[in-house]
Amino acid sequence: MPYTKRTDLAVEARELWAESAPKTTKLSGVKAEDLKCHGYDVTRIQILDREGERALDKPQGTYVTVELSALARREEDAFARGVSAIREQLLPLLGMVRDDSVLVVGLGNRAITPDAVGPSTAKHTLATRHLVEHVPEHFGHFRRVTVVQTGVLGTTGMESAEMVKALVAQFRPNRIIAVDALASRKLTRICRTVQICDTGIAPGSGVGNARAKLDRETLGVPVIAVGVPTVVDAGTLVSDLLEESGRDMVPPEQWGPYGGGMIVTPKEIDTQVADISKLIAYALNCTLHDGLTIEDVDMLTS
Amino acid sequence: MPYTKRTDLAVEARELWAESAPKTTKLSGVKAEDLKCHGYDVTRIQILDREGERALDKPQGTYVTVELSALARREEDAFARGVSAIREQLLPLLGMVRDDSVLVVGLGNRAITPDAVGPSTAKHTLATRHLVEHVPEHFGHFRRVTVVQTGVLGTTGMESAEMVKALVAQFRPNRIIAVDALASRKLTRICRTVQICDTGIAPGSGVGNARAKLDRETLGVPVIAVGVPTVVDAGTLVSDLLEESGRDMVPPEQWGPYGGGMIVTPKEIDTQVADISKLIAYALNCTLHDGLTIEDVDMLTS
Amino acid sequence: MPYTKRTDLAVEARELWAESAPKTTKLSGVKAEDLKCHGYDVTRIQILDREGERALDKPQGTYVTVELSALARREEDAFARGVSAIREQLLPLLGMVRDDSVLVVGLGNRAITPDAVGPSTAKHTLATRHLVEHVPEHFGHFRRVTVVQTGVLGTTGMESAEMVKALVAQFRPNRIIAVDALASRKLTRICRTVQICDTGIAPGSGVGNARAKLDRETLGVPVIAVGVPTVVDAGTLVSDLLEESGRDMVPPEQWGPYGGGMIVTPKEIDTQVADISKLIAYALNCTLHDGLTIEDVDMLTS
Amino acid sequence: MPYTKRTDLAVEARELWAESAPKTTKLSGVKAEDLKCHGYDVTRIQILDREGERALDKPQGTYVTVELSALARREEDAFARGVSAIREQLLPLLGMVRDDSVLVVGLGNRAITPDAVGPSTAKHTLATRHLVEHVPEHFGHFRRVTVVQTGVLGTTGMESAEMVKALVAQFRPNRIIAVDALASRKLTRICRTVQICDTGIAPGSGVGNARAKLDRETLGVPVIAVGVPTVVDAGTLVSDLLEESGRDMVPPEQWGPYGGGMIVTPKEIDTQVADISKLIAYALNCTLHDGLTIEDVDMLTS
Repeated sequence: MPYTKRTDLAVEARELWAESAPKTTKLSGVKAEDLKCHGYDVTRIQILDREGERALDKPQGTYVTVELSALARREEDAFARGVSAIREQLLPLLGMVRDDSVLVVGLGNRAITPDAVGPSTAKHTLATRHLVEHVPEHFGHFRRVTVVQTGVLGTTGMESAEMVKALVAQFRPNRIIAVDALASRKLTRICRTVQICDTGIAPGSGVGNARAKLDRETLGVPVIAVGVPTVVDAGTLVSDLLEESGRDMVPPEQWGPYGGGMIVTPKEIDTQVADISKLIAYALNCTLHDGLTIEDVDMLTS
Repeated sequence: MPYTKRTDLAVEARELWAESAPKTTKLSGVKAEDLKCHGYDVTRIQILDREGERALDKPQGTYVTVELSALARREEDAFARGVSAIREQLLPLLGMVRDDSVLVVGLGNRAITPDAVGPSTAKHTLATRHLVEHVPEHFGHFRRVTVVQTGVLGTTGMESAEMVKALVAQFRPNRIIAVDALASRKLTRICRTVQICDTGIAPGSGVGNARAKLDRETLGVPVIAVGVPTVVDAGTLVSDLLEESGRDMVPPEQWGPYGGGMIVTPKEIDTQVADISKLIAYALNCTLHDGLTIEDVDMLTS
Repeated sequence: MPYTKRTDLAVEARELWAESAPKTTKLSGVKAEDLKCHGYDVTRIQILDREGERALDKPQGTYVTVELSALARREEDAFARGVSAIREQLLPLLGMVRDDSVLVVGLGNRAITPDAVGPSTAKHTLATRHLVEHVPEHFGHFRRVTVVQTGVLGTTGMESAEMVKALVAQFRPNRIIAVDALASRKLTRICRTVQICDTGIAPGSGVGNARAKLDRETLGVPVIAVGVPTVVDAGTLVSDLLEESGRDMVPPEQWGPYGGGMIVTPKEIDTQVADISKLIAYALNCTLHDGLTIEDVDMLTS
Repeated sequence: MPYTKRTDLAVEARELWAESAPKTTKLSGVKAEDLKCHGYDVTRIQILDREGERALDKPQGTYVTVELSALARREEDAFARGVSAIREQLLPLLGMVRDDSVLVVGLGNRAITPDAVGPSTAKHTLATRHLVEHVPEHFGHFRRVTVVQTGVLGTTGMESAEMVKALVAQFRPNRIIAVDALASRKLTRICRTVQICDTGIAPGSGVGNARAKLDRETLGVPVIAVGVPTVVDAGTLVSDLLEESGRDMVPPEQWGPYGGGMIVTPKEIDTQVADISKLIAYALNCTLHDGLTIEDVDMLTS
């Protein structure tokens, strides 16, 4: 049995299916389309039924991937276009009405760099609930947003899902946006790809330590997940490389010290996580509050 | 009307009462005793009735102050004795039985140095609930402890008290220990005094921005507060100095730009907050888990 | 003898002189002018001779103060105007020619928040010497800039001045720009005022711990100092308040525990130091490299 | 041509030689011995001549490796034994006399976690030169130690070697100890192995970006390097795995997106770098100052 390739991206799950399935088979129960959005490549995958779920090993729903390639090339308006692209893809998945309130959840461990996308995004996301409720004359046009960093089981003793469940019961948000680090199969996608989906998330996937799920079923509220791959599992990298060079798989039992918990990551992961987290936070702020611009967010968060 | 001197310490509230009351009056409704504990000066103040409440402007209950003077002199066993002293004073106020579970709450803003005692203590406090529940064969002798940093209203949109209320409903702890920064009247007490009380706390007192209370009434669970003064209000400092030098008060309207929100703090506040937070966390760990030593905590938290 | 009021700002030294001198005396040896620069109030003080030196207790030279009041009011273009104002005031004091190289020195202790202006500014300042020398085809139009954080005596065992002297001998810069935290007399100036002078600096003034000087005499190269007040000495605050309310001074011997090393600082000092440091770094970058814009710096430093 | 396996450890260079050389060949010009030191495995490799240099691709000199395996198993006295073992191996390589002064250099980028061993060690190393010189009555029995973090070329514009050269000319230390992150070939050695050698170092090896050397030849002073592997080069990992499973090499041109600059590192790299840096700093402190104990260092650095 070959080493199981690990990815949290629907777009890569589809690639893996295509590689393993007989050439003539058609992927049924899955609809995919490629588009351009503010200059970025976007792939929109819909898993429509049980067959699609089994094929891609993901629950039914919509998975949108934005490839922020221009960020890496440091093009001048790359940040602004990235914010617009994520906003445009996020809005229909959120499907909110005027007065809806939102809980933004930063998942992951801020003390582990490749796991810090959630906490780092939360830090730049505007919390407005208290302003809307106490100073409506100035903030009445904002949406009520609460922001939480759940921490991780090892330092809190509470599953993130349990903690969010408690906050949902108390604050009754209409939507949850959960931000987390993911694992991808390809190194080129690290900190350059954002996946947005309407099926929730199991925190900790990115660092190979999945926990209880946050989704509509467990929380009673729609959960939109925003994820960024920050690592490639070392085993996945090796398997891929072997295949591409036409070699056989290495059976897991021969992995020895090369396996368990090792990750591949770029040297500049600290900066890259900081940059992409800021971009996502700006996109959330501009999505959640009508008419807010990047300059407004600069003023309100600095 | 003179500038109101600001303190969160019962021991200082009593001093202020003594200074303002006629010499012959006796402070009624308040019982105080001085003792030594592991070489440190301890003052134990009990507010017994409504009269005592009015005199000291604090709710009925017990307030214990440990003066960790030896820490400043860097005596060799100062840390270990401090841990023992806080443990010994904390235990009777907690009044726990064998199977009680505890929620430790780190209040305050970790991005503002003098407000970071709560978050910094939480970081060093062992979370054990998940270990006790999932690996009872190894951790059965530990108490179930959950740990949370609530963040502050401005960055979460949620009052700390509301968030704790939500967690209490979900996790049903038998006791809450809330750790926060306080304001004292005397500079000599900064980061050298620990106040433990059984009457709960209003988060943010230390930085002059008090919020909804965490106490037995609001949460339905006994709340033990552990506080450390990290600042002196600039106005309080000036008033005290004037009085001691036999001068009149400065009326608040003459304060102009010297008042509002200015704090007095030692230059080394970053290190001092880090040091005292670690000491409190070690004391909590040794209090909450029978037989745990400082060396054990070193091993488990490093 | 009254408590000596402490300030590192020439503009405040002049105010103190005016308060203590007989009304009819004229301040001789000092020239001062007020101007507007990109909407900000600028004061330009020149100490012309020994008499001026004695009166203001500062060496002969030019001291320019920019009051960045609009930053506090969060006006939209406050940052861009601040960068332009500092650039415009800094350029003539630097008096550079095309090929001059510059050493930027961040003084102070990055582990002590109110002392971190220097290190924090250095972090955002572009180092370009290696690029100009090794990739002249792309970076030939940049000036050669080296950047160093000297650390502090307590953690390096070396005086900052000695370390800079060593680097000057090795790298032979034509100009030195030294950035440090200062002490002011007025709370309203904290993190809102930038002083630029051509007389060098004694590091550590801001936190009351002055060390060997960095100036043209000790280093053999013109030293332009850029300073920001981050604290008010607690004693200075009290003296000022007493005077303004018509009371006598408190003699230093009565200060007791209120004096030694205590500082007054705003609660938000962490954010304020981060913000002003970024502004100064951007101003340095735009001053040192012809034609560089804020957007360029965003691209090059993020 | 196979992918060149990358390692900075002499002990691994010897393993690689043994794997590639014909079975009957003897490694000439290299002497190696295995010993135990405070319970840890120590390997002492001496490169004696040009032949040895060519075989292991390292300059003549002594390379000692301490394998701190017990740290990973969290044995109780692992830290204290590690400090003793490193001290015992370091002392003869330093070969100091009573009055020698020492410059400790922390190489690497503190903003990149796996490159932060040098800066992080420097932070915990006691600087004593100023104390010995100014307060000899209290510190006369200490050695004069200066400590510097050089930063990296990209943020300073100066090669670390140039900066150290400048400091050597100014402060005239008798010995230099340079601490840096390294790359190893085996994941099991990450943050568990310390290599001490008397041949100096090229900074940045650990993150694949080697710079001008710091050694006796370039600086005129003996340079002892202390290095810790924090990463495995992704290509090296794959090559090794292929070989062990009996497969052919993958030619570099087939690597595509899997190569350039990617590293393999444990998820817990942040904590592991912090822990090993502290251990090395404590070992340096106990080595440089006669009679200093771990408890003394605790008191002096906290």
